[in-house]
Amino acid sequence: MPSHTPDELTLRPIGRVSSPLRDPRDAPKQGNEGGPDAWLELISDVAPGLRHLSVGDDVLVLTWLHRADRSTLEVHPRDDPAAPLRGVFSTRSADRPNPIGIHRVRILEVAGPTRFRVDALEAIDDTPIIDLKPVLDRRVER
Amino acid sequence: MPSHTPDELTLRPIGRVSSPLRDPRDAPKQGNEGGPDAWLELISDVAPGLRHLSVGDDVLVLTWLHRADRSTLEVHPRDDPAAPLRGVFSTRSADRPNPIGIHRVRILEVAGPTRFRVDALEAIDDTPIIDLKPVLDRRVER
Repeated sequence: MPSHTPDELTLRPIGRVSSPLRDPRDAPKQGNEGGPDAWLELISDVAPGLRHLSVGDDVLVLTWLHRADRSTLEVHPRDDPAAPLRGVFSTRSADRPNPIGIHRVRILEVAGPTRFRVDALEAIDDTPIIDLKPVLDRRVER
Repeated sequence: MPSHTPDELTLRPIGRVSSPLRDPRDAPKQGNEGGPDAWLELISDVAPGLRHLSVGDDVLVLTWLHRADRSTLEVHPRDDPAAPLRGVFSTRSADRPNPIGIHRVRILEVAGPTRFRVDALEAIDDTPIIDLKPVLDRRVER
């Protein structure tokens, strides 16, 4: 890469997931297999950015999958040892160099300026939240 | 947040975008408005993770929008001063605390183990790439 591409970038978490899901082994293997209802607990610093989120909104929650192994470049899909190894960039494995999770959820309840209950979030308790984005298109999400 | 939530996390870029798009003002305002064909140039360290990416694959490219203003929490949507301010987390503004871009593209050409030509990428030249993920479902991308 050219020398002006930075070696490292710094993420500052904007909140955390509060969930009954405690163990990564209990999390579904793919993002579209659901998960329990959970709370998004954001920090007060970002409250002005959250003002227009409402019950019924579909949002993408970007998380930092903090239990992931960042040195992994190939995995057996779905943790099945019989499945041939695949490069992590053609899987949704949590183990990858930058373990960012993308979770599509719906807001079920707004319990204050920084607390949101959502459906079907497959991230474990205490997973850092790094961004929230609106879903642009129900058919094709970019 | 609980004290065990980290204050900072470190991303290590896995590559960069090579694009004719040079100026953020030329980039489309929303991810689904297209952009020019571009190259994904990944670092050789991650080559084993890229092995199964093929022409025709639809992938999500996660980028770091390096020109973004991370202190912005409210924006006029689409840079229209007449539009009422909205919290950034209900917009796709690049300006946000952790400026991660999500771009859905299709692979048009594989020019080596770490070089991929893709269609319609709305990121400017030299944008750091932080992750690649397969699109799971054409209808509903989580």
